[in-house]
Amino acid sequence: MPTRIALALDLGGTKLDAALVDADGSVLTASRNRRATGRAATPADLDAAIEHTVAHALSHLPRDAEFAGVGIGSAGPIDLAAGAIHPVNMPGLHGYGLADAAHRSAARALRHDDFPTRLRHDDFPTRLRHDGGCLALAESWIGAAAGSRASLSIVVSTGVGGGIVVDGEPIGGASGNAGHLGQTVIGDLTLEEIASGPASVAWARSQGWNGETGEDIARDAASGDVVARAAIERSAATVGLGLANASTLLDLDVIAISGGFSRVAPDYVDLVSAALVRTAVLPYARATRVVRSALGDEGPLVGAAALVLR
Amino acid sequence: MPTRIALALDLGGTKLDAALVDADGSVLTASRNRRATGRAATPADLDAAIEHTVAHALSHLPRDAEFAGVGIGSAGPIDLAAGAIHPVNMPGLHGYGLADAAHRSAARALRHDDFPTRLRHDDFPTRLRHDGGCLALAESWIGAAAGSRASLSIVVSTGVGGGIVVDGEPIGGASGNAGHLGQTVIGDLTLEEIASGPASVAWARSQGWNGETGEDIARDAASGDVVARAAIERSAATVGLGLANASTLLDLDVIAISGGFSRVAPDYVDLVSAALVRTAVLPYARATRVVRSALGDEGPLVGAAALVLR
Repeated sequence: MPTRIALALDLGGTKLDAALVDADGSVLTASRNRRATGRAATPADLDAAIEHTVAHALSHLPRDAEFAGVGIGSAGPIDLAAGAIHPVNMPGLHGYGLADAAHRSAARALRHDDFPTRLRHDDFPTRLRHDGGCLALAESWIGAAAGSRASLSIVVSTGVGGGIVVDGEPIGGASGNAGHLGQTVIGDLTLEEIASGPASVAWARSQGWNGETGEDIARDAASGDVVARAAIERSAATVGLGLANASTLLDLDVIAISGGFSRVAPDYVDLVSAALVRTAVLPYARATRVVRSALGDEGPLVGAAALVLR
Repeated sequence: MPTRIALALDLGGTKLDAALVDADGSVLTASRNRRATGRAATPADLDAAIEHTVAHALSHLPRDAEFAGVGIGSAGPIDLAAGAIHPVNMPGLHGYGLADAAHRSAARALRHDDFPTRLRHDDFPTRLRHDGGCLALAESWIGAAAGSRASLSIVVSTGVGGGIVVDGEPIGGASGNAGHLGQTVIGDLTLEEIASGPASVAWARSQGWNGETGEDIARDAASGDVVARAAIERSAATVGLGLANASTLLDLDVIAISGGFSRVAPDYVDLVSAALVRTAVLPYARATRVVRSALGDEGPLVGAAALVLR
């Protein structure tokens, strides 16, 4: 039987990743390719980045493979019906038709006469979700939420995002955007504006600390700096509060946490879990397991592939 | 073709309702029966109330009907796997096996030799959800959320509860309890502790108002009492904040509002909608339509029936 392989794309605030992923959720390392994007990215920039990374990735498609299609994760929000994106942090790309662009680039790459006739067509599915939804699908497939009935998987990093999976199915909501935990509101700010890496750095500096990055917070907290440690606890308490409400509303059995700032301290996930237990009122919500992601940085790519592989 | 008919039960904090519901979602009025319950209810009380109301309702089952089974809505939380309930406001009933008790009473009633042999068996489905989940299913079936892709339906009354339906399917979560909006936390209190009818009365009294009920608030606000009006606006703003976060997390296209306190002022739903728009950050969440329930007080019974009719 030929191996089923998907092309996965992951568009974040700083880069576009593309890679081939097989039916076990393994990323084919040689196929992986990255191009920088950024706040100032234009449609023409992204056209070029997609064309380049997709061509590179597909050039590694084994000639005997069954091509499952294109799965795409993108910084949100997205417009599922139009296959378009409206990324908060890339205003120049609002309305960009990412699904069509990726589909066209993949079809173009497959027309190359290196490929057997069988693969040279454009009749493959192309599916788009926001990156949090893809991550959640990956965690539920081969990660920390495998076997879960209802899970939320989040990233705590430059931003805070997430996605929901119930009974193995991603919950998209009305327009595909369910899971945007970072834009829930606590007091006058969003959760992300309180708890992200940059927000934690800004808060610590406002308290007299002199570092500049999340890595600086990690290092200084480990050496006993009281303000750096307080910034970590403040972030975890805020995330835990948001998750207590999410679990009360959604009845989650597992919450998986990933992202650079979640590694700011060895006990970050434990602090989040303690805050959830402290905040949640109903027993089923207090019983939610909060765990560290079992996936590396490939989670979003694996989840994007799952959109067409599963 | 014989009419398909379900037996529906709705257990609230003050009463148990039972009725037959047909495949169009119509409640057969003559079959409807109610027994009082209350905070002090014991398992023996509830056994007797179920036996009585179920026997009454089923005595009206047309002899040529197809019996679809028993659908049950209960004050939450529930334990879906065990078919048991743990209602916040009826501590004596924690762990009560409501699904089994209702199934046994229905089977017993159907053994009566008034019924044709065809109906005299216990091989019918019995399904339990919390009352908010049932209400949401009813709104999505024949109510204000019909045609919605992702809806949340809530009750603002003595308590605040709700349920979620995505693509026509009720979202239960890990243990069947998704939708408990009232127990999400805002500051030091739950949403229900701020925004319910009794909470609004208590707050108004703390501000010098002298009434005693939600009806008093409605009347005094209509006559221009500033504190009574402020109590209404405070409740609606709090509900709107909770719903902004729910819509951000779940990407809802419709939120349907019912319950006695939601009728405290003609513009209550508009106030909630305005608070949601003021609070939500992402465009898709701000676009959520907030509407008044199209169902009467029969919503939970209709939704309970939907558990086995649909």
